Amino acid sequence: MKIGLIGFGKAGKAVANVILQNTDFSLEWVLKNSPMPTIFSAAEFLGVNSEDQGLIYSLENITVDELLDMHPVDVIIDFSSTDSIFVYGKMAAERKVTIISAISHYGDVEKELLRELSEETTVFWSPNITLGVNYLMFASGLLKNIVPDVDIEVIEEHFKAKEGVSGTALKIAEKLDLEKENINSVRAGGIVGKHEVVFGFPYQTVRLVHESISREAFGNGALFAARELADKPKGLYNFEDILRPYFELKEG
Amino acid sequence: MKIGLIGFGKAGKAVANVILQNTDFSLEWVLKNSPMPTIFSAAEFLGVNSEDQGLIYSLENITVDELLDMHPVDVIIDFSSTDSIFVYGKMAAERKVTIISAISHYGDVEKELLRELSEETTVFWSPNITLGVNYLMFASGLLKNIVPDVDIEVIEEHFKAKEGVSGTALKIAEKLDLEKENINSVRAGGIVGKHEVVFGFPYQTVRLVHESISREAFGNGALFAARELADKPKGLYNFEDILRPYFELKEG
Amino acid sequence: MKIGLIGFGKAGKAVANVILQNTDFSLEWVLKNSPMPTIFSAAEFLGVNSEDQGLIYSLENITVDELLDMHPVDVIIDFSSTDSIFVYGKMAAERKVTIISAISHYGDVEKELLRELSEETTVFWSPNITLGVNYLMFASGLLKNIVPDVDIEVIEEHFKAKEGVSGTALKIAEKLDLEKENINSVRAGGIVGKHEVVFGFPYQTVRLVHESISREAFGNGALFAARELADKPKGLYNFEDILRPYFELKEG
Amino acid sequence: MKIGLIGFGKAGKAVANVILQNTDFSLEWVLKNSPMPTIFSAAEFLGVNSEDQGLIYSLENITVDELLDMHPVDVIIDFSSTDSIFVYGKMAAERKVTIISAISHYGDVEKELLRELSEETTVFWSPNITLGVNYLMFASGLLKNIVPDVDIEVIEEHFKAKEGVSGTALKIAEKLDLEKENINSVRAGGIVGKHEVVFGFPYQTVRLVHESISREAFGNGALFAARELADKPKGLYNFEDILRPYFELKEG
Repeated sequence: MKIGLIGFGKAGKAVANVILQNTDFSLEWVLKNSPMPTIFSAAEFLGVNSEDQGLIYSLENITVDELLDMHPVDVIIDFSSTDSIFVYGKMAAERKVTIISAISHYGDVEKELLRELSEETTVFWSPNITLGVNYLMFASGLLKNIVPDVDIEVIEEHFKAKEGVSGTALKIAEKLDLEKENINSVRAGGIVGKHEVVFGFPYQTVRLVHESISREAFGNGALFAARELADKPKGLYNFEDILRPYFELKEG
Repeated sequence: MKIGLIGFGKAGKAVANVILQNTDFSLEWVLKNSPMPTIFSAAEFLGVNSEDQGLIYSLENITVDELLDMHPVDVIIDFSSTDSIFVYGKMAAERKVTIISAISHYGDVEKELLRELSEETTVFWSPNITLGVNYLMFASGLLKNIVPDVDIEVIEEHFKAKEGVSGTALKIAEKLDLEKENINSVRAGGIVGKHEVVFGFPYQTVRLVHESISREAFGNGALFAARELADKPKGLYNFEDILRPYFELKEG
Repeated sequence: MKIGLIGFGKAGKAVANVILQNTDFSLEWVLKNSPMPTIFSAAEFLGVNSEDQGLIYSLENITVDELLDMHPVDVIIDFSSTDSIFVYGKMAAERKVTIISAISHYGDVEKELLRELSEETTVFWSPNITLGVNYLMFASGLLKNIVPDVDIEVIEEHFKAKEGVSGTALKIAEKLDLEKENINSVRAGGIVGKHEVVFGFPYQTVRLVHESISREAFGNGALFAARELADKPKGLYNFEDILRPYFELKEG
Repeated sequence: MKIGLIGFGKAGKAVANVILQNTDFSLEWVLKNSPMPTIFSAAEFLGVNSEDQGLIYSLENITVDELLDMHPVDVIIDFSSTDSIFVYGKMAAERKVTIISAISHYGDVEKELLRELSEETTVFWSPNITLGVNYLMFASGLLKNIVPDVDIEVIEEHFKAKEGVSGTALKIAEKLDLEKENINSVRAGGIVGKHEVVFGFPYQTVRLVHESISREAFGNGALFAARELADKPKGLYNFEDILRPYFELKEG
């Protein structure tokens, strides 16, 4: 499967790293917002041994139309910023390229655009695209569904400098109908990221815990989505949509 | 709902304790194997304030037929021993009393009897009847289903004197296709019981953890089953059967 | 060693339970504030098999002087309420009986009385008398001492109904110079009690965790103190005083 | 303080990274075993912004004597291999340069050499040089000292590919007099490294947990040692020797 990657910040680099090392996927190109003096290959830049082309372009050197014509792809993965969808969305949809966006915050305008694009191609959006966190949310929702009145608290731990409550914890709380005061935020040292959902029953406790090791988890999440979406009709999908069939499969 | 309880060992007492304190259920009687000099009420014996009759009978004082006629019940909950099903099973099935068995080990003969009884009434069997452990198994199976090649290990912790690998850990391992060497058994002090399933991904870790606080969790599990089975047709059920509908519900 | 126990509430009963089962100690009597219709033995009351006398007296039946003369003890263990020290303190000190108090909150007047009593006998006071929690505080203090600028947060978990921040967590925070906002309080289900001190370094994390299983831990803590104080001269001691020698021993 | 670093493998690079970013220390040079085509600065090589010289030499380009004369240092930190001590040890000792070795396995010959060198200069050896792991061992030893008959088990978790029981776990077990069967080794995904010592008491549990985030923790451990050794007389030291004074300090 041919991939084009939008964004080459910390997350984008980690995602490129994962794609380059996965032989089922080929990284055709990377598109950056900021200009680069010379055109590098992502593999060279990251010191990875890979046969993928993966040239890093900037919007100063090339337009999206040119890029998509010169180097056609099956999937665009977006780890850049909120605005980018306006830059590439239409051109991707016209060419029936699947769009996978991992942008954290979209406003109403962007969500509406996603909806429109999804009338022409397969569009997927997940603000936290790791498999682990999405499984955590799904499985937590199921337990809450079984025992609606169980006591639930969330403990999230991150590096000292992280400001505010983690977006993922807020999402978990929203999904489980928790108050913000049920989220406990620990900030200490260099903790990469840990989310724990505590279910307190009268005589037993259940905990679902997700620990991040590195940003490369985003890459695996995006490729998992790419694989799952390969045979899906056009439409707008989120992570829960691609997890749900696995839950049904179990019934057989 | 009217309950009759078979067995009054450590687990049976804890279960009686829970039923007596739950106003949705009434403990009609307890049937013990070993003889008792006088007939006590379970509430009095356990020092619980409850209006339930809950007299403790021994098979020396009464037959199952007499008991079921004098004090009819909707559900029989069995926390006694492997053999008991032969003593009460037929009489219960004839009267369409729901049977909930929490016996740890049934052989082929007992399983066959359960199947026969399930042609006349609703029969439920779960060797570990806590909601938490069954949820753990179900939710673990789902994650394995999504990512079949993920590395999985089980850590189980119990009090020092507990011999052998925990039966629950063995069940989890069986369900997840693990080798026995993937189970790590920690024995220390008075740990009541902890089961942790570790899912190791390349860049993230997911953990599902169940901690037991006290045996009363069995009581809550049995009553959860009783409630779920109330509107089920006759047939043979296990814990997964009553959890599955909740997983489907989410799709809507 | 002959023990007299003041207080027979939930904690007092658990402590009596531990003393009765420990053959190095003999429970001579229990003194309750509230009246009892008849005089029971603690062993009988708790259903423990023990040869200890352990009669349960009320201040309605007997004075402290009478009790100490009729049934002399080496140590008084106090798990009752703040006021009791005024009732038995002087009589114990006169007879050189060691006083071990586990009262949570003493005001200045009580602390002054302890100081006075300690001029005549060995007096020990610990608001949380478990070995585990005191070790946790001691060992945490050492790590903070080594790396004063490390990030520290406390996570404490208790049953849903527990109000306010746990007193133990507040003590840990005080000892480690933490702000109250560094304490994260989780309230869910029936969690007996868990305290975790998280030390966040840039590239590693250290956690010290204490989990309570049952109130009997208070009994073991009190007996540990009794044993340690046996050869100590009169004076006022806290838990840190009896732990410190173990830390020095290591140097040899 | 001027530092020379021996070794530039994965651990060596992480250590260089930490030294370069710490303004209290200056990385004067790095000495590699394997040849390099051109002489780079470590800062340039690692993409770190630093004023330190930090040129990377190979033994093909330069002798240890030349290096120590051209670029004198206060401390040599060795993250290379067992043999290196024979290459630089004598020259360092003659010049009273402090030696800090983090080599995992030294045989009797190397240990004897360290002892000889320590008659001329300050020599420090720690097979696991992180502060966290050493604190864990020290603090665990203290608790075992207080309660010699407590049940202890070790759980260590590492990435799937790690073979055999972790060396650190074996050291912990040795220090605490545990059997090898008390070590539980979990291998899953990309777990960087976790060591947990479980102390099981009858009514409570204490856990000491160390989690590695990245190899840079070795760098911080080495610099911690360098700082602590600055005012120490010549002699042979291990990590416990530099931690112990902090434990004594508490007594005052």
